[in-house]
Amino acid sequence: MVNIRSILLVVPLVAVTNLALAGKWEALPAKAPAPADNPTTAAKVKLGQILFLDPRLSSTGTVSCNSCHNVMLGGEDNRAVAMGVDGQTGGRSAPTVWNAAFNSVQFWDGRAPSLEEQAKGPVTNPIEMGMKSWDDVVARLKVIPGYAKLFEKAFGSADSISKDNAAKAIAAYERTLITPNSAYDKYVKGNKKALTDEQVRGMNTFAEVGCGSCHSGAAFNGPKMKPGKGHFMKFPVYPNKVFQSKYKLTKDAGLAEVTGKVSDKQLWKIPTLRNIALTAPYFHNGSVKSLDRAVEIMAKMQLDKKLSKSQIKDIVAFLNALSGPFPKQKMPELPGTPGTTLN
Amino acid sequence: MVNIRSILLVVPLVAVTNLALAGKWEALPAKAPAPADNPTTAAKVKLGQILFLDPRLSSTGTVSCNSCHNVMLGGEDNRAVAMGVDGQTGGRSAPTVWNAAFNSVQFWDGRAPSLEEQAKGPVTNPIEMGMKSWDDVVARLKVIPGYAKLFEKAFGSADSISKDNAAKAIAAYERTLITPNSAYDKYVKGNKKALTDEQVRGMNTFAEVGCGSCHSGAAFNGPKMKPGKGHFMKFPVYPNKVFQSKYKLTKDAGLAEVTGKVSDKQLWKIPTLRNIALTAPYFHNGSVKSLDRAVEIMAKMQLDKKLSKSQIKDIVAFLNALSGPFPKQKMPELPGTPGTTLN
Repeated sequence: MVNIRSILLVVPLVAVTNLALAGKWEALPAKAPAPADNPTTAAKVKLGQILFLDPRLSSTGTVSCNSCHNVMLGGEDNRAVAMGVDGQTGGRSAPTVWNAAFNSVQFWDGRAPSLEEQAKGPVTNPIEMGMKSWDDVVARLKVIPGYAKLFEKAFGSADSISKDNAAKAIAAYERTLITPNSAYDKYVKGNKKALTDEQVRGMNTFAEVGCGSCHSGAAFNGPKMKPGKGHFMKFPVYPNKVFQSKYKLTKDAGLAEVTGKVSDKQLWKIPTLRNIALTAPYFHNGSVKSLDRAVEIMAKMQLDKKLSKSQIKDIVAFLNALSGPFPKQKMPELPGTPGTTLN
Repeated sequence: MVNIRSILLVVPLVAVTNLALAGKWEALPAKAPAPADNPTTAAKVKLGQILFLDPRLSSTGTVSCNSCHNVMLGGEDNRAVAMGVDGQTGGRSAPTVWNAAFNSVQFWDGRAPSLEEQAKGPVTNPIEMGMKSWDDVVARLKVIPGYAKLFEKAFGSADSISKDNAAKAIAAYERTLITPNSAYDKYVKGNKKALTDEQVRGMNTFAEVGCGSCHSGAAFNGPKMKPGKGHFMKFPVYPNKVFQSKYKLTKDAGLAEVTGKVSDKQLWKIPTLRNIALTAPYFHNGSVKSLDRAVEIMAKMQLDKKLSKSQIKDIVAFLNALSGPFPKQKMPELPGTPGTTLN
């Protein structure tokens, strides 16, 4: 849970903000920040990747973190809403794991103050990975012989297999899942040929229209906050009956689903636009299939602006410049249980 | 479907066979054989790996070939029976994909005469990957822009996306999924320190008891047959009410489920023992959790022998010498659908 929230309704300031933002294009840092109590180490990253890819962390042995946050596929599942064990679905679309390290809070409603806390959630969610308890997860990891050595290398002791350390390792791995060398980053760093003319037009339109008033910063996910402190925006700012009805955009109350507060209704974390072209379908409920349409809806419902087709086309071209490239990864070998089975 | 079958009931010949087999330990070839119409090329292997890992080949977008034949996890799912879309399960355990290239026929009942034919099956099986038709699969691949280039590199033309070529690429990839450098292979090639004393004892016991009369050859999966020609064994040869009842070992009629012939009841392809220690639980229905127990049951029901605990322990130690090592693989990037979604 996030304790402190800052809520900005910046709409009246759009014109001013745009001018400021126009000169504030930021490249993504080459490294993601890590908390003092979980410095990123090679051993943790290795263990974290293995845990992230291990479907035995689910009740059925079929769903891994990677099932919904597929690092081979834009960091998510390309589905409207995620699908967990036994084909169960919830109401929200899996956010991309790529650059999640640059979010100050996690989940659509920002209810987890860190990657570490986020990693603990889905494993025991009955419609996601479905484990009864983290005690069961830890017990399972302990009967897989190879994990003791991996945890020892990461945390200094063979009996360090625990919920907290598993989450720390997964978070450490996720901090390596960043894409700081996109065409956009190259452009911002001075290579003016890195973007096409259409993309540069789109970049300017993005700023002029006001998209950057929320999607600001290097990860296009809002102002830099203290880790664990969420920054939320109301969606929609300008209610639109047609879109809301067609795409059921206000059925889910967002932050209010966590806090129960009326004042938190329709408040959402600002999602990153990094790799947005690779994470269709769009919005918290995955109801909108194309990025063109998502851009059109956002302009209308957040900024009360009706974009022209060419404006949308340019912005989408620009958003495509925020994709990848993805760092190369080796496919790990998951530690086995020679001669026996877990269940 | 396999047209020709040779069925051996070798039990009366066990004593003689053992002597011959004792001197016939074979290392796995460093390369798997490929059919003349599908030579293994780097471009096909690359495409095949991507297709193998792509969950968008399933109706829900959540199940890839790798979901049940996990190359990171012994080449299968460590589950009793495989789980397909919407949490559905069938009656059989997913066989390991590692060294499947050395099977003359595929599936437990050998109904596919090649890796290529096997690859076509699960995609449209309603309880596995659940696609309505291969036309739908091909249509889906065609709207993912990156696939055209991958197919072009593999098959020479951008409009070569087809069921047959997808299967060819997957098969080509699977022919690289072999483990010819196990401790056993090193031992057979002359490194007498590659096996422990216990493993050498187990190797001799394996031969003496008669395990090798069926599990013969470099892949421990029976005599070398012409590609597409299956070699089947009856299981059980010596019915055992206790085991059959407890593990429901004869509920599934094996080959007869395909052919409908009474004479094919309880006939099964001889599965490879390569990496068997990593593929618990055991048997066609995954009913037996430990390798010790599986060895005990096989000796009783196939050879009418009651093994001692130390014999079982030694054989299991030997079987562990047939595990890995697995060739290193890079994690591929699955081609995206920028700005849009498939469904």
